Amino acid sequence: MSKELILPKRLLMGPGPSDVHPNVLKSMATPLLGHLDPEFLNIMNETMDLIRYVFETDNKLTVAMSGTGSSGMETVFVNLVEPGDKVIIGVNGLFGQRMVDVAGRAGAEVVQVEAEWGTIIDPKMIEAALKNNGPVKAIAIVHAETSTGAQQPLKEISRLAKEYDALFFVDAVTSLGGISVGVDENEIDAVYSGTQKCISAPPGLSPVSFSNKAVEALNARKTKVQSWYLDLSMIQAYWGKERFYHHTAPISMIYSLHEALRLIKEEGLGTVFERHEQNGRALQAGLEAMGLELAAQEGYRLPMLTSVKIPDNVEDANVRKMLLQRYGIEIGGGLGPLKGKIWRVGLMGYSSQRINVMQFLSALETILTELNADINTGKAVRTAEDFYLKN
Amino acid sequence: MSKELILPKRLLMGPGPSDVHPNVLKSMATPLLGHLDPEFLNIMNETMDLIRYVFETDNKLTVAMSGTGSSGMETVFVNLVEPGDKVIIGVNGLFGQRMVDVAGRAGAEVVQVEAEWGTIIDPKMIEAALKNNGPVKAIAIVHAETSTGAQQPLKEISRLAKEYDALFFVDAVTSLGGISVGVDENEIDAVYSGTQKCISAPPGLSPVSFSNKAVEALNARKTKVQSWYLDLSMIQAYWGKERFYHHTAPISMIYSLHEALRLIKEEGLGTVFERHEQNGRALQAGLEAMGLELAAQEGYRLPMLTSVKIPDNVEDANVRKMLLQRYGIEIGGGLGPLKGKIWRVGLMGYSSQRINVMQFLSALETILTELNADINTGKAVRTAEDFYLKN
Repeated sequence: MSKELILPKRLLMGPGPSDVHPNVLKSMATPLLGHLDPEFLNIMNETMDLIRYVFETDNKLTVAMSGTGSSGMETVFVNLVEPGDKVIIGVNGLFGQRMVDVAGRAGAEVVQVEAEWGTIIDPKMIEAALKNNGPVKAIAIVHAETSTGAQQPLKEISRLAKEYDALFFVDAVTSLGGISVGVDENEIDAVYSGTQKCISAPPGLSPVSFSNKAVEALNARKTKVQSWYLDLSMIQAYWGKERFYHHTAPISMIYSLHEALRLIKEEGLGTVFERHEQNGRALQAGLEAMGLELAAQEGYRLPMLTSVKIPDNVEDANVRKMLLQRYGIEIGGGLGPLKGKIWRVGLMGYSSQRINVMQFLSALETILTELNADINTGKAVRTAEDFYLKN
Repeated sequence: MSKELILPKRLLMGPGPSDVHPNVLKSMATPLLGHLDPEFLNIMNETMDLIRYVFETDNKLTVAMSGTGSSGMETVFVNLVEPGDKVIIGVNGLFGQRMVDVAGRAGAEVVQVEAEWGTIIDPKMIEAALKNNGPVKAIAIVHAETSTGAQQPLKEISRLAKEYDALFFVDAVTSLGGISVGVDENEIDAVYSGTQKCISAPPGLSPVSFSNKAVEALNARKTKVQSWYLDLSMIQAYWGKERFYHHTAPISMIYSLHEALRLIKEEGLGTVFERHEQNGRALQAGLEAMGLELAAQEGYRLPMLTSVKIPDNVEDANVRKMLLQRYGIEIGGGLGPLKGKIWRVGLMGYSSQRINVMQFLSALETILTELNADINTGKAVRTAEDFYLKN
């Protein structure tokens, strides 16, 4: 017979989930209110405001979808794309590929603009695709490509979307709460995220936000949204003042999101971004001091997710297993063409802490030394500490 | 600025969510493991076994979808129905109606077999629809209609499905863990449930199970499943031994489901059913002793959800508000054609307790007396207690 769970200690430094703040864990143990209880509806209202805060938007249609980040991706495409619509998608990693798959299932005619994994999408390539493809319904891009560690600039592509009268979709799963997404400033029309990255709540919800232009497109649809579960016209009537019952909200998950966002607001979004930046750059300095090579394009490296090339003669899975079994540290391996070639080290949300940078660099150095990898020893931790002193 | 949540005490006796056992709440506060951590994969395996236990099935494809019960409904239809397939759906309440909507969006040609809300679907009507409609891909029915309190017998409709070579789909959202669903015994091909009813975990997951015949239909599809998020061919590769990453599982929710199902197994499924039966019938005896009329068809009343007609000259919302504000007791109102006409009183999972039956009957009698409703006073609690003594 199964027993009550007794689980090992972990330090979550992979591509997500990240460690969850004890206050957020505690909030999940709060007894439930009903999903139509006036007190719960207040919590939903506060949560919507907090989501607007981290997205940096005044968008009215800003809610948490009852699924993980991928359900947010699907929400954007099934609600805003109709069969036959042309959509340009930037593909420079797994999540760009996933958007192509999801958009295709929604009936979109997809134009892929590809770049090597680890690099960013050059806005000029988007512009070329716009010129070659007649009217386009939307341009979609991944802000923080979790599979590679590359950070995509948004401004110029947003400007192109406006120029060509296309909607602008952004995947902010890994960026939200770690770097500025700036939904209003960047004039993003539809954006989705997840709770288990820099928000540091458990996985299971997808914060989404839609501009007025997106809402107009939604209202002007000629066809029914193919997904009942993700149909925004019904979901906004539950989160909005009508309070129409659609589905039972994941109450405990909403508690956790409310508390996680509240902690971010208490720390201050600017301070939170600064913390991610500091820890990410310190980690990257430490890895380079060890003689390892960072995998993402220079100048476009995410602070909350660092991809680093696996040194020669060292086996990927073996090192990750040693980190996990010996120290309880989880990091991620590569995906797709980068499988076996990179590690992905996350410093997201509550996991983005100076002590974690030190613990990880020290543990990795010990293991690589033991495995006779060709690295510089005795430099990583000192270099990272120097970085903190100087910045 | 938002504050940490401080919430009022509630006794959840509505149509779900139900009260959550303290052990289950506690399990949600467990620090997270990664979704690909070997220890977490063990928990997923144990959870699959526990889901099989409550569904009473050996079906290999038995998992928890990362969404609420409605996502389970959509999972069944988008994976097993292809555009143009004919599907017969029994409609005798809101959730039958919802299946019609969901099936239609998946491209099904829907044949509705309707019955008055509160009554069951007569298998003869299903048989007539089968005779009149040529080849049918599936027959779908709601086992426990949460909007009315009616319990649908499954055996005869299952037999018809076999006779006409159709798949048999069952909505077990409210029945699972309260009455026997008997997936193998009733030869159900696809079944979905929710966690926030008789399982008494928080809402946010949908346990589903598929027969070999359903898996064959899935594998024989000519078209791609329209939903990426709910595509079972990919999801079974994550839950199965391949362990392919699909989306990040809602880790804390899986902990809660594991613990809730473990508690059910410890109590024993037969004992759990008996407890639901006892408390439900005691409540119903008490309500009738008060002079109120039960709303669902006699002989087909659910034990975990009792629908009762609102007495004349009493205002629905007013009574529910008094129950909530004065005693913290939540019950449900009617939906659709039954709005303002019935109350729905749940005794689901951890909420199904003798003390709750007494508290509710006593509170309702006090309020109705105060509002000068035409009821028998002083009889409800005594009648319910007599029921326990005799049964």
